[in-house]
Amino acid sequence: MERDIFSNISPLDTRYYKSNRELMDTLSIYFSENSVIRYEAVVEAAIVIVMEKYGLAPEGSAEQIRKACKEIPPEEVYEEEEKTRHNIRALVNVMQRYVDEEVAPYIHLSATSEDITGTAGALRMRDGFYKVVIPKAVELMEVLLDIADREAGTVQIGRTHGQHAVPITVGYLFSGYADRFGERLLKLSEAVKDLKGKMSGAVGAYNASSLLFNDPRKFEEDVLARLNLKPARFSSQIIEPEYILDLIHAVVSAFGVLAQVSDDMRNLQRSEIGEFGERFEKGQVGSSTMPHKRNPWNFEHVKSMWKEFTPRILTRYYDQISEHQRDLTNSASSRFIVEIVTAFTLSIDRLTKQLKKIVVDYQKLNENLSLSGGMFLAEPLYILLASKGVKNAHELVKEITQRAEKEGLSIFDLIREDSNFNKIVSLDAWKNLEKNPANYTGKSKERAQEISKIWKHKIAEIKKDCEGYREALEILH
Amino acid sequence: MERDIFSNISPLDTRYYKSNRELMDTLSIYFSENSVIRYEAVVEAAIVIVMEKYGLAPEGSAEQIRKACKEIPPEEVYEEEEKTRHNIRALVNVMQRYVDEEVAPYIHLSATSEDITGTAGALRMRDGFYKVVIPKAVELMEVLLDIADREAGTVQIGRTHGQHAVPITVGYLFSGYADRFGERLLKLSEAVKDLKGKMSGAVGAYNASSLLFNDPRKFEEDVLARLNLKPARFSSQIIEPEYILDLIHAVVSAFGVLAQVSDDMRNLQRSEIGEFGERFEKGQVGSSTMPHKRNPWNFEHVKSMWKEFTPRILTRYYDQISEHQRDLTNSASSRFIVEIVTAFTLSIDRLTKQLKKIVVDYQKLNENLSLSGGMFLAEPLYILLASKGVKNAHELVKEITQRAEKEGLSIFDLIREDSNFNKIVSLDAWKNLEKNPANYTGKSKERAQEISKIWKHKIAEIKKDCEGYREALEILH
Amino acid sequence: MERDIFSNISPLDTRYYKSNRELMDTLSIYFSENSVIRYEAVVEAAIVIVMEKYGLAPEGSAEQIRKACKEIPPEEVYEEEEKTRHNIRALVNVMQRYVDEEVAPYIHLSATSEDITGTAGALRMRDGFYKVVIPKAVELMEVLLDIADREAGTVQIGRTHGQHAVPITVGYLFSGYADRFGERLLKLSEAVKDLKGKMSGAVGAYNASSLLFNDPRKFEEDVLARLNLKPARFSSQIIEPEYILDLIHAVVSAFGVLAQVSDDMRNLQRSEIGEFGERFEKGQVGSSTMPHKRNPWNFEHVKSMWKEFTPRILTRYYDQISEHQRDLTNSASSRFIVEIVTAFTLSIDRLTKQLKKIVVDYQKLNENLSLSGGMFLAEPLYILLASKGVKNAHELVKEITQRAEKEGLSIFDLIREDSNFNKIVSLDAWKNLEKNPANYTGKSKERAQEISKIWKHKIAEIKKDCEGYREALEILH
Amino acid sequence: MERDIFSNISPLDTRYYKSNRELMDTLSIYFSENSVIRYEAVVEAAIVIVMEKYGLAPEGSAEQIRKACKEIPPEEVYEEEEKTRHNIRALVNVMQRYVDEEVAPYIHLSATSEDITGTAGALRMRDGFYKVVIPKAVELMEVLLDIADREAGTVQIGRTHGQHAVPITVGYLFSGYADRFGERLLKLSEAVKDLKGKMSGAVGAYNASSLLFNDPRKFEEDVLARLNLKPARFSSQIIEPEYILDLIHAVVSAFGVLAQVSDDMRNLQRSEIGEFGERFEKGQVGSSTMPHKRNPWNFEHVKSMWKEFTPRILTRYYDQISEHQRDLTNSASSRFIVEIVTAFTLSIDRLTKQLKKIVVDYQKLNENLSLSGGMFLAEPLYILLASKGVKNAHELVKEITQRAEKEGLSIFDLIREDSNFNKIVSLDAWKNLEKNPANYTGKSKERAQEISKIWKHKIAEIKKDCEGYREALEILH
Repeated sequence: MERDIFSNISPLDTRYYKSNRELMDTLSIYFSENSVIRYEAVVEAAIVIVMEKYGLAPEGSAEQIRKACKEIPPEEVYEEEEKTRHNIRALVNVMQRYVDEEVAPYIHLSATSEDITGTAGALRMRDGFYKVVIPKAVELMEVLLDIADREAGTVQIGRTHGQHAVPITVGYLFSGYADRFGERLLKLSEAVKDLKGKMSGAVGAYNASSLLFNDPRKFEEDVLARLNLKPARFSSQIIEPEYILDLIHAVVSAFGVLAQVSDDMRNLQRSEIGEFGERFEKGQVGSSTMPHKRNPWNFEHVKSMWKEFTPRILTRYYDQISEHQRDLTNSASSRFIVEIVTAFTLSIDRLTKQLKKIVVDYQKLNENLSLSGGMFLAEPLYILLASKGVKNAHELVKEITQRAEKEGLSIFDLIREDSNFNKIVSLDAWKNLEKNPANYTGKSKERAQEISKIWKHKIAEIKKDCEGYREALEILH
Repeated sequence: MERDIFSNISPLDTRYYKSNRELMDTLSIYFSENSVIRYEAVVEAAIVIVMEKYGLAPEGSAEQIRKACKEIPPEEVYEEEEKTRHNIRALVNVMQRYVDEEVAPYIHLSATSEDITGTAGALRMRDGFYKVVIPKAVELMEVLLDIADREAGTVQIGRTHGQHAVPITVGYLFSGYADRFGERLLKLSEAVKDLKGKMSGAVGAYNASSLLFNDPRKFEEDVLARLNLKPARFSSQIIEPEYILDLIHAVVSAFGVLAQVSDDMRNLQRSEIGEFGERFEKGQVGSSTMPHKRNPWNFEHVKSMWKEFTPRILTRYYDQISEHQRDLTNSASSRFIVEIVTAFTLSIDRLTKQLKKIVVDYQKLNENLSLSGGMFLAEPLYILLASKGVKNAHELVKEITQRAEKEGLSIFDLIREDSNFNKIVSLDAWKNLEKNPANYTGKSKERAQEISKIWKHKIAEIKKDCEGYREALEILH
Repeated sequence: MERDIFSNISPLDTRYYKSNRELMDTLSIYFSENSVIRYEAVVEAAIVIVMEKYGLAPEGSAEQIRKACKEIPPEEVYEEEEKTRHNIRALVNVMQRYVDEEVAPYIHLSATSEDITGTAGALRMRDGFYKVVIPKAVELMEVLLDIADREAGTVQIGRTHGQHAVPITVGYLFSGYADRFGERLLKLSEAVKDLKGKMSGAVGAYNASSLLFNDPRKFEEDVLARLNLKPARFSSQIIEPEYILDLIHAVVSAFGVLAQVSDDMRNLQRSEIGEFGERFEKGQVGSSTMPHKRNPWNFEHVKSMWKEFTPRILTRYYDQISEHQRDLTNSASSRFIVEIVTAFTLSIDRLTKQLKKIVVDYQKLNENLSLSGGMFLAEPLYILLASKGVKNAHELVKEITQRAEKEGLSIFDLIREDSNFNKIVSLDAWKNLEKNPANYTGKSKERAQEISKIWKHKIAEIKKDCEGYREALEILH
Repeated sequence: MERDIFSNISPLDTRYYKSNRELMDTLSIYFSENSVIRYEAVVEAAIVIVMEKYGLAPEGSAEQIRKACKEIPPEEVYEEEEKTRHNIRALVNVMQRYVDEEVAPYIHLSATSEDITGTAGALRMRDGFYKVVIPKAVELMEVLLDIADREAGTVQIGRTHGQHAVPITVGYLFSGYADRFGERLLKLSEAVKDLKGKMSGAVGAYNASSLLFNDPRKFEEDVLARLNLKPARFSSQIIEPEYILDLIHAVVSAFGVLAQVSDDMRNLQRSEIGEFGERFEKGQVGSSTMPHKRNPWNFEHVKSMWKEFTPRILTRYYDQISEHQRDLTNSASSRFIVEIVTAFTLSIDRLTKQLKKIVVDYQKLNENLSLSGGMFLAEPLYILLASKGVKNAHELVKEITQRAEKEGLSIFDLIREDSNFNKIVSLDAWKNLEKNPANYTGKSKERAQEISKIWKHKIAEIKKDCEGYREALEILH
């Protein structure tokens, strides 16, 4: 059923579809309504396939059901639902039309709707993550690690409270982003691998399947094994909701790291700071009325998406509760989970592209570093003094720096006037700083390189995992 | 640009579009991306119209701009944006193509993008509320008030803690829903009327318009008056965010009342309670595996939508903050506000339809009322005793009821054994209850009728408001 | 019952109690557990007072109950609750000990617990707001308006996207804060005035009071009138939850404005921007290891409190739903509402104190304004050009500014080379900017002064309201 | 500093302190302001201990610092903070007073405040979880598993949509609670073990410690090893916020399971359902006006606490973002994290106590099971029919059940009239149900026992972990 996309309500299906069609089309394979029906059909197929294996369904059932899966049009299922008012019954009715009469009764036999819906939901998520989300996240990691490596030695003033603190390097900054995003990526993978299916019937106690099989738990395991899933240890009508919840926690907390990077990039592009910049495309307009403006709107966009999608995790916490063996107040809401994943993936992609275009302004970095006239040397001064056992070192240095600030003098000059500093000035550590205050970057460079190295290994493994991954739909081949 | 709706990501644009196409098509007039462009064009038109009035723009400008508004295809604006990377500049560029060269420079003159976007946003909301949301809410009010009236005298056991308390009437229950939803509807109307526009330029200080007009605040007022809006007392690049926030608070808190009604209806349909029921459509299926089941899924659906959309108000609170004269971390997120309004309206409509079909089971009401054997008479017993100055009345009655429960006796019998109750048994109030414990409904009936009457008046006024309302688009006629 | 405050869990009761004891002690009058019991007793008193008036309770009851209210120790109520496991029954039992036997049965007569709890809750909120929260908010308004007035003409570069846009004035910035916070203050006052009470019994239908009075609704009105409250039009066991919800919405959205101010102040104190500063107290330490640092931690604190307390509004939305005539899943949660109000008031106070100490760095303002070499003149240039009918004015100016930037030239020089600009250079508006680009502030100064004036009037009225306000506790006099 | 607890604002520090003093006093050891100072002192001690080991601090420093830790009064630290306006500087100043002059300069040497605060925060959490939270969670698990075991064979009608579905057993229901809570407990343990510390200085790059040590990363590892912690792979001024976030996610999602149990218990105690009940204490009052009422308020309380504390996780997601090397808008908010943990632990404890008192009403279970007259046999009928290849089995059974319902007949009678059912009636599976429909519980009993057995093993291990655990404070011995 065709419709003008500009008539859609959700920005994801209009504006953000338009702005990244390629990615949206790929996400659609796993997260659209089409995908719902396709994956549910596949789960129904797995049942029939095992039933034939068990000798319950007639020979050839597996082949027929595979064929049916590929043929049924979603539109027909929706039309049938208008009659049945029940989505899975509609699917079953339609599937039965595409197989022989002898096979038809075995479709969905012993299953409850949620055996299909819940299992299909887990499969769509897993496939979508292995095929799209994780590869995109890996790409971002590579960009972050590249910058961490490349700028490992580029000195930048560190900032706490928005105030100049002591120096780090740009590479160290990015190694932090990479480390945090990498850890989230591991959480994501774990949560995806942890997803479970079920084939335990209307209230989870294998009531129906116990009629057909002596060991209905074994039947459940066999059906799910076809789809490469394990059953939840316990289920009611539904799979325990915590598996999906953990996954969305991983997504939203990873989204937080995207927002962190974006926020820093925004601030470091401020007119007064200017340490980073974006290359401007030809024809691009910064402001409709201020022709001179260039705005970090892509980074703002990522933060804005994070603001929109983060509170939505709360619905997942609320959906943990379902009365008795299940009320259905988690049914409509669960359908919206794919929106979070979609927005997250779009944001990864936008950030990746933007970081590839980012330009470091080395001159501005230097200017900012010099802004305080080396006032950050107060810290090493205090540390070295104290390490030599000088009492009140902190107070002493505070006074010196206040004098330096007030009188516009250099710290280097002032300390020579005060005998307390004698023990310090001859130390190698201090001489090194006297030569160039920008040397006061601690282990920024080394740590950036080490962290980068560690993650390059880990990322390589995740990539391999993704490449070797077989989608649930392959059961149809 | 056409696309298969089943490829969409948002359930609003697939499943819930399918399930209520008529309403969704109407909502689309105000809340789709199409509507964004159409309303923004209208705001641009208002500027040119006033400029001609002021003698700044050439004669005939108003006519040309009105024509342009009707002609420009959204698709063309989107294509232009791919070049400019700026949506309003794209709109302006396209509009300029549809007017004469002499008129072109006056399009958007002195405005900043947000003058257009923010004002258009307010207009879309206002029109959508007057034309769709409020009329739908009024319809629900009518259904609630009808039930309140019709069942004003239908006795129902009241429940607190899920335990039987003392009786009310079904009408009284519904008068409460109506009263709460009615109050929210008033809040909604207020918030809609309070929406503001702006035409104060890039940082809100009329920098640009001051170059053209001695009294740029007057210019702002004149442009907005054309659209029936007032300017915010203060604006930065953006309108003060609290106007929209108040509106969304009204929406989400009204949504809470829908959830309240739905939750009660769910519970009152429990197998053990069964005081309400839904008429089943022919062919409808309750469960894919349990052929005997009938489920209150429409009420569950409304609660589920409420769970999904309520947390999204948080983004509105977070979007109150925008650095300096504005950062744009509220830009993408603002685009999603329409989703909340859409889900709310769909839920109103679903609830209305469902309540029209609801069936009261008078027999079950009576059975439940009798379940405790009139144990609820403990309350009037205690009240009447205490009103006669009996000490420890509460304790006394507690003992009587515990005995009645334990020994399976009637309260009426037991109290005759205890002299304390002498003063009570001859009171009219007590005799009335002895005749029929179901008489203990206080003022349920009268209050239900009174509340219903009050709201019928108020609703009539709101309806009149809606009918007399003129949409912003009428500026084009 | 005394306890070391450092053993408390909540930071409000330890750290933030310590840091502002005076204010916390005042808030405690209305928002502590002590206040719960005291206000509940007052509501019980109102019932007895009216019952005596009606001739139901014996003469002298009013006097006795007033005395009891003043005497009962909260500790005793708590001890009683350990037996009854019911807080209001405990209160009633204790109150009965402090009056004569003849009066005792009339205490709480016809009321349900929630008549007391709900009404007392409304009273505590109202008193606390009139006596503490609103006066504190007024104080902040005064500081904001003072700065708006004082700095109405102090030019500052406006910033959007963190990028220099066009100039405003510091006063205009603050008039915006004042306007937004002022509007929230009005919402607060409205919501406080809108709070309702109830005296309608266990399920809201006046079941019990109907036994005693022909017009129990009148009785409810009379009791509440003593406390200066109106009854909700409808109640179940509880007052409609939307009254408190609207109040908390007003609080949280006002908190958002505090966070906005704080965020701007943080950013404007960045090392590179430095337009504002805080006076440092003697002995104050900025960093434990960096003796040179001065940090805007008070502003950070306000934003942090806002982050902590904003999500808590969600519980209020969730508490809108209560099954049937009430389940009690909103009971414990409601007790925490006072924390939001407390944190909000503390934050107002901190922000007020901090803004009183804030220092404007006029030199830095000028330096930042000059940073772009008047590049912001691109806007007036484009506007004036376009107003003269020049086509492609936006594009033309964009090219000029890009050239100016690339070649390090002044816009003033470049435009003389291009004939298009002839019509502009002789305009008064342009000459004024040529004289001093800082003149390009639009109506910043005038609007700041106007907005300030409007609010000074409004604030005066609110102050009068607060001064004339009589607390609920005065019923005891 | 002593204060009347009834003057406190937070319900945790008044009402809920009163209602469970023993537990609150234990939680206070880890989560009060006292504990903050005590743990921060311990981290400072670890630094000095390692410095002596390295030969930097004078001999005997370790002994002195250990003594100081035990002696310093929190009150003194707070007084000092009033001067320094900096909490860690205050602590250091005070500690220096309790050691010799030669040792003093080595206190805090090379550390930034956050090295202390962040590390101490991790330690308090870890100790509090191992010593209180996890043991309490284990106790709840034991109660859940006991009920699962004991009632493994107690038949209960299963419910979906609040409607009767097919039977399970009470034990199976509880095995589900146990399984879900158990999984959360594992997540909790994992997250606790994953907590990290830091000793990397003001911006995380070891700037200061690099002056003193060739391998400052080694120094960090050595100090933290004393406290049994590992350093974060990367830190800025702060430890990566995701470690604490994961822990709070585990807490809040475990809280969701508590709410699930409570919600079910509430509903199963409804007057009409009555399958569970609470033993009433002598003297306990159910309602202040309805002497006959018994309410499931403890279960309501747990759900209410869950509603209050769940949204607070959002602040943790928002606190993931901190500008550059850190702004401090996460400082005040982080202090409130302990409230979530406290409320969670109190709720575990309350639920445990309540479940110990819960009474199963076997008669009511049976009555409810019979309510539908075995209508749930529709499911096995359909399954068995379909398994024999009967077409339209679902439709066929639906008709039979509708007839049975309408005509008030038994399914057993009706199916004998229809030839389709011939193949079924002689099957053992069907005969078994004909004998007793309550036999249709699938594998409820077996699964309940299996799940219970698995968790008893796991729980035993967790208990051993807790018993063998050594607190951070033991470094002082």
